[in-house]
Amino acid sequence: MADDMMRVLGISGSLREGSYNTALLRAAGEMLPAGMTLDIVTVGDLPLFNQDLLMPEPPEPVRRFKARVAAADALLFAAPEYNYSISGVLKNAIDWGSRPLAQNVFDGKPAALMGATTGLMGTARVQLHLRQIGVFVNLLILNQPQVLIARAAEKFDDAGRLTDEPTREHVRKLLVALDAWVRRLNPR
Amino acid sequence: MADDMMRVLGISGSLREGSYNTALLRAAGEMLPAGMTLDIVTVGDLPLFNQDLLMPEPPEPVRRFKARVAAADALLFAAPEYNYSISGVLKNAIDWGSRPLAQNVFDGKPAALMGATTGLMGTARVQLHLRQIGVFVNLLILNQPQVLIARAAEKFDDAGRLTDEPTREHVRKLLVALDAWVRRLNPR
Amino acid sequence: MADDMMRVLGISGSLREGSYNTALLRAAGEMLPAGMTLDIVTVGDLPLFNQDLLMPEPPEPVRRFKARVAAADALLFAAPEYNYSISGVLKNAIDWGSRPLAQNVFDGKPAALMGATTGLMGTARVQLHLRQIGVFVNLLILNQPQVLIARAAEKFDDAGRLTDEPTREHVRKLLVALDAWVRRLNPR
Amino acid sequence: MADDMMRVLGISGSLREGSYNTALLRAAGEMLPAGMTLDIVTVGDLPLFNQDLLMPEPPEPVRRFKARVAAADALLFAAPEYNYSISGVLKNAIDWGSRPLAQNVFDGKPAALMGATTGLMGTARVQLHLRQIGVFVNLLILNQPQVLIARAAEKFDDAGRLTDEPTREHVRKLLVALDAWVRRLNPR
Repeated sequence: MADDMMRVLGISGSLREGSYNTALLRAAGEMLPAGMTLDIVTVGDLPLFNQDLLMPEPPEPVRRFKARVAAADALLFAAPEYNYSISGVLKNAIDWGSRPLAQNVFDGKPAALMGATTGLMGTARVQLHLRQIGVFVNLLILNQPQVLIARAAEKFDDAGRLTDEPTREHVRKLLVALDAWVRRLNPR
Repeated sequence: MADDMMRVLGISGSLREGSYNTALLRAAGEMLPAGMTLDIVTVGDLPLFNQDLLMPEPPEPVRRFKARVAAADALLFAAPEYNYSISGVLKNAIDWGSRPLAQNVFDGKPAALMGATTGLMGTARVQLHLRQIGVFVNLLILNQPQVLIARAAEKFDDAGRLTDEPTREHVRKLLVALDAWVRRLNPR
Repeated sequence: MADDMMRVLGISGSLREGSYNTALLRAAGEMLPAGMTLDIVTVGDLPLFNQDLLMPEPPEPVRRFKARVAAADALLFAAPEYNYSISGVLKNAIDWGSRPLAQNVFDGKPAALMGATTGLMGTARVQLHLRQIGVFVNLLILNQPQVLIARAAEKFDDAGRLTDEPTREHVRKLLVALDAWVRRLNPR
Repeated sequence: MADDMMRVLGISGSLREGSYNTALLRAAGEMLPAGMTLDIVTVGDLPLFNQDLLMPEPPEPVRRFKARVAAADALLFAAPEYNYSISGVLKNAIDWGSRPLAQNVFDGKPAALMGATTGLMGTARVQLHLRQIGVFVNLLILNQPQVLIARAAEKFDDAGRLTDEPTREHVRKLLVALDAWVRRLNPR
C-alpha cells in the first residue's frame, strides 16, 4: 500500500450486461471509506481453464487478470448464485488465478463477499462454496457482515443503481469492516 | 430407451489433454454392463455462460451440448477437484445446460459421480459440491458406491489407461449400480 | 408396507417446547395424502453419542429410536438451522442411528426435508448439510419441492398451529411428492 | 493474555475413551511452541441443547464450558468425521456455546482444526462443515496447514500416543501457525 491507499479489486461472477452483482460493485464504489479505492476487473475475456495452456506461459487475458489481483490489497467478490453454487464464470477465473499453485495470486489476500439475487435466499449458498474455495487458495475472507441481497429487482432501479437505503447502509458496513480487516491483518 | 439400450453420457470436468478424469471415462467405456452405451461429450467448446446469450437462442455449441444431455438416459460425471470445488469448466457447462430453467436438461436425470486426483483425497469435496448443485437442477445422483481415485499417477499408465485392477473393479461396480439405479427410477 | 399404509416417521431437530419445527411436523400430520401415516419420534432422550456404549448393546432409548426408524417406510425431517448447520441434537440422533454401520437404520430409506426459522433464510444451509450426511448414511432424499419456511413467527399462531395457507399448501405438495417418491423407489 | 502466555483450549468431538482425536489433542500438548499452554475441555457432560434451558440460566456444565472457552486466547478443535459431517457431540457443544447469541463465546475467537480417522479421507469433510459453522459464530479459523490424519491406527500406538514422526511434525507446524495467527490478529 505504497501511497497509503487501500486498493480493493472487485470481481463480479456474472457477465450479464444488467447484472445485479456487477451493479452492486458499482454501488460499492460510490460509498468507499476514506483511503479506499475500488477497481472492477472483468473475467469475461478469460478462456476456459485448461492446464495445458499454463505453459510456456498463460494466455494474455489470464496474465492481465492475475496481475490485477496480485496488485490489490484486498478483493471484493460479487457472486451470483447459479444452481446453488458458484457461477462457472467466477470459478473459472479463480481456477486460472490459482494455477500454477506456486503462482496462486489469491494466497493470503484479504477478501469480502457480496451477492444479489432476484430470489428470496440472497446467495447464501454460493458464499459458502466460495468460502470453501477460499480455504484452499488461502483467501482471508471476512466473516461478517454478510451482504446477501434478496429481491434485487426491488432494490435496484432500471438503470442498475442500488436505491434501497437499508441495503446501501449494509454494503457500507461491509466496506468499513473490510477496511478494518485489512488493517488488522496487514498493519502499515 | 427406445431400443432397450441404456444411453449414458459421460461428462469430464477437465480439458487437459492427459486428464485423468477424461481417461477415467474412457476406462468406464471398456467395462460397461450389457445393454449400456457410453458416449463422452466435450464441454470445451462452450463459451463462458452469459444469460444475455440465451436469447433469441443459445450459441450452437450450447444447443448441441443440451441436445446430447437431453437424449441421454443417465449421466456419468468425471469431476476433477480444483480448489476444493467443482472446476469452472464443468460448472460452466451445468450453468448452460440448466438455463433457461424451463429448458433445464438435467431435470430428473439419473446420474453417477467419479473423480480422480494425483493427491490423497480423491475429489471428495467436489463431489459434494456437485451433489448440492444436483439438488437444484434436480439430478437424481446415485449415493454409492463412490469412486474417489487418489494417487491417480500410480493407477493410470503413461497412455492414460486405467491399469489398477481394484480401481477398475470399483468403477465396474459403479456402472452396475448406475444401471440398477436407472432401472429402479425408470422401469421400462 | 404390510397393510398398504405408508408409514412416515417424523424427526424434529429441536427440543424446544414451542419449536416451530416440531409444530411443522404436527401440521404435516393434518394434511397427509390418503394411505400415509405420520408418527413423530423424539430424540431428546438419547444420550450423547459414544461409540463405547454400542457394546454389548446400545442404551435402551437408542434401541427404541432405531427400531422406530427401521420400521418406517420413509422419514420426514424437520430440521432447524443452528449456526449455519444441523442441530447437535439431530446429528446426535443420526450418529446413533447409523452405528454400527452394519446396523445403519437409514440405509436406503426414502426421506424428505422441511425446516422453519424465524429468520429470512429458511434453513437452506442445514438442509444441504443434512443432504451431505444422507449421502453417507444412504438416505434417498427427495430433491424437490423444498420446504424452507422463513419468518415462522408470522406463519404459526401462538398455539403453534401453522396458519399460513400458502405454506400449508407447500407442505402438502411435499407430502404428495414424498408419497410419489416412495412408490417410485419401492413399488408395491 | 495477562501473563503473556497464550492459552489454547482443546475441544475433542469424540467421547470414546480411546478416541484418536482426543489423543491428537494430547499429542499437541507435548509439542507446544514456547509461551503456549493447552488445556483440554470435555463436552461429554453437556445435556442435549434445548433453548428452553437457557433461562433463567443455562445448566451448570454449560456455564463451566462457556467460561473455559471465553477464557481461552484460541481454540484447537480435534474433530472426528461422523457421516460426512461434524459429530453431534461437538455440534451440541457449539450450539450451547453460541446461545444466547449475545453471549456467543466463540465470537471473534481464533481457532485451528485437526482431525484423525482410521479411514483414508482424514476428516476433510467435517472440517469444511466446521468452517461453515465458524462463519456464523465468528470463529477466525486458520486456513492452513490442514491436519487431516488418515489411517490413524497406523500412526498412534496402542496407548494412544502419536508415534508417526511426519504427522507429529505436521501438528507442530499447525501449532506454530496458530501461534502466529493469534499474534497477527491480536497483537499484544
